[in-house]
Amino acid sequence: MRRPESIAIVGLGLIGGSLAKRLLVRGIQVVSWDVDPQTRAKAGAAGIDCVSEIEQVCAGEPDLLILAVPLHQMAGIAGALLPNLPARTIVSDVGSVKAPIAALMAELGLASRYVGTHPMAGSEQSGFDWASADLLLGAPWVLTLVPETPRTGVELMMSMVTGDLEGRVHPLSNDVHDASVALVSHLPHAVANELLTVVGTSEFAAVAIGLAAGSFRDGTRVAGTNPRRTEAMLLDNKEWLEAAVRQAIAGLTRFADALAVGEDVAAFFDDPAAIKSRIQTHSRQSGWIDFAVLDDGHWQSELLALGARGGLITAVEPVTDRLQVSW
Amino acid sequence: MRRPESIAIVGLGLIGGSLAKRLLVRGIQVVSWDVDPQTRAKAGAAGIDCVSEIEQVCAGEPDLLILAVPLHQMAGIAGALLPNLPARTIVSDVGSVKAPIAALMAELGLASRYVGTHPMAGSEQSGFDWASADLLLGAPWVLTLVPETPRTGVELMMSMVTGDLEGRVHPLSNDVHDASVALVSHLPHAVANELLTVVGTSEFAAVAIGLAAGSFRDGTRVAGTNPRRTEAMLLDNKEWLEAAVRQAIAGLTRFADALAVGEDVAAFFDDPAAIKSRIQTHSRQSGWIDFAVLDDGHWQSELLALGARGGLITAVEPVTDRLQVSW
Repeated sequence: MRRPESIAIVGLGLIGGSLAKRLLVRGIQVVSWDVDPQTRAKAGAAGIDCVSEIEQVCAGEPDLLILAVPLHQMAGIAGALLPNLPARTIVSDVGSVKAPIAALMAELGLASRYVGTHPMAGSEQSGFDWASADLLLGAPWVLTLVPETPRTGVELMMSMVTGDLEGRVHPLSNDVHDASVALVSHLPHAVANELLTVVGTSEFAAVAIGLAAGSFRDGTRVAGTNPRRTEAMLLDNKEWLEAAVRQAIAGLTRFADALAVGEDVAAFFDDPAAIKSRIQTHSRQSGWIDFAVLDDGHWQSELLALGARGGLITAVEPVTDRLQVSW
Repeated sequence: MRRPESIAIVGLGLIGGSLAKRLLVRGIQVVSWDVDPQTRAKAGAAGIDCVSEIEQVCAGEPDLLILAVPLHQMAGIAGALLPNLPARTIVSDVGSVKAPIAALMAELGLASRYVGTHPMAGSEQSGFDWASADLLLGAPWVLTLVPETPRTGVELMMSMVTGDLEGRVHPLSNDVHDASVALVSHLPHAVANELLTVVGTSEFAAVAIGLAAGSFRDGTRVAGTNPRRTEAMLLDNKEWLEAAVRQAIAGLTRFADALAVGEDVAAFFDDPAAIKSRIQTHSRQSGWIDFAVLDDGHWQSELLALGARGGLITAVEPVTDRLQVSW
């Protein structure tokens, strides 16, 4: 299975910058560009090859082009790159929502040359100043697949993530990805923000915050930080997020109604206890997928079936193309 | 200001047991009782004087009687103790909701001999086996006051908490206490449980939990643990909790509605950011209250005014009766 030898990175923020720094350590040839001249200067000073015009970033015909820019800039950036995009270069991105980007790539005629990805790592900070070669190390990394997804692109990404980044790959459809991050990231952010607002705007706020227990501190830890970045992240996934928020509202309403009329609320506490116990006692199994023998139309469905049951790829055997997997 | 010399403790669970162990270390005379003979035996083995009949627990005419039993047992226990309750003994309790207990004490004719308290400490565990002399050390300790509250009782509790337990005292009305803990403890527990249920019962649960980020882990940390204890704690405060849950539902509904129609949601993120910044930049002030010169009717209102603005008593000067306070 081929490992990428040259990668172009557009956007040197926290994720793009960290990726560039790590790939540099790994001896992979990196050419990059960022819209901000100061960022380009800083990246250059850190040893990262930085071109001054976006059109030049793929001049070396890299194996991979990774777009690490905000979702709302993706169309403009991809459009600017398209005329000079070498035929051999696989396009990828690291955005936190996948269906809209897959749709954009299809519109641009790039569906058969595109692999969507989402590295599940980050920090409270943003920008190249906070980028580090270690940030993405060992992170879960979602690859999103559609029938047109190029096998070469998936192979390059699987090699890079499991090898150069020591991470694990979650192969998912765009919708399963977007629905899942709505549940485990965007909904918790919404709930934490609302919890902080309810307490902070209460007439009892001064007393309540003075008495704050661990449950409040944990429940509001991600609230109120980077409001614009959180807003953008949640708005990018607003359909799935809205559905998740409505689910939470429905459950809380059933609970409040039961409290009001004195109905039994045991299930409200027993259900999450059973879920937590299931999570904690789940014993993972491992196995392998013989990727080499799977032909087109089968390798996608095989990987998606693995991902849909919570499975992931932990390593790639470079000679045999066997994938070590666990679920 | 008088410090308690002898204390009777009824109920040797996590809180009662920890209090008994700490008071023993401090050389205060403790007599205790627990409904469970095994717990009494363990307490005896730990050096805690334990009587076998509840009626005997106040035979020594202690300064304080502290009821450390669940709310639903409070009426039965208080009723059993009433016939043998020495006139000089102040009654207190450590329940996590205060208005219903204050009402019970008034019904029993004990309003002028009762001080409600709530030590804000605990652990995932419960029972005497987990009790420790350190558990309550330094904890915030709410005292609830009504016009009938006995000055002696408040003095004994303030001395014990700030001195023997190295804690701080939050003087509050019953309603302000119950509303505040609904906001910073009971609502976060409800929200965490609902969040875990929404994710765990989703068709995407396996994937979502595999991708779980810090926001989900933080937001569900208190969910699903000790379901019966959490249920009892929340049900004991169900009126205030219901109001708080309705507030959260209203805010989340406004957010979901705005997502649905594409309205501006900036305030949903800016409001908690402003609250968090206010909390983090709040610089506490300190001062003192000359408790000795405050007569009846004034000391209660003075302490309640302090507590209502988030203030607390950090120390008691034993000779001058001055209270060191901060807010």
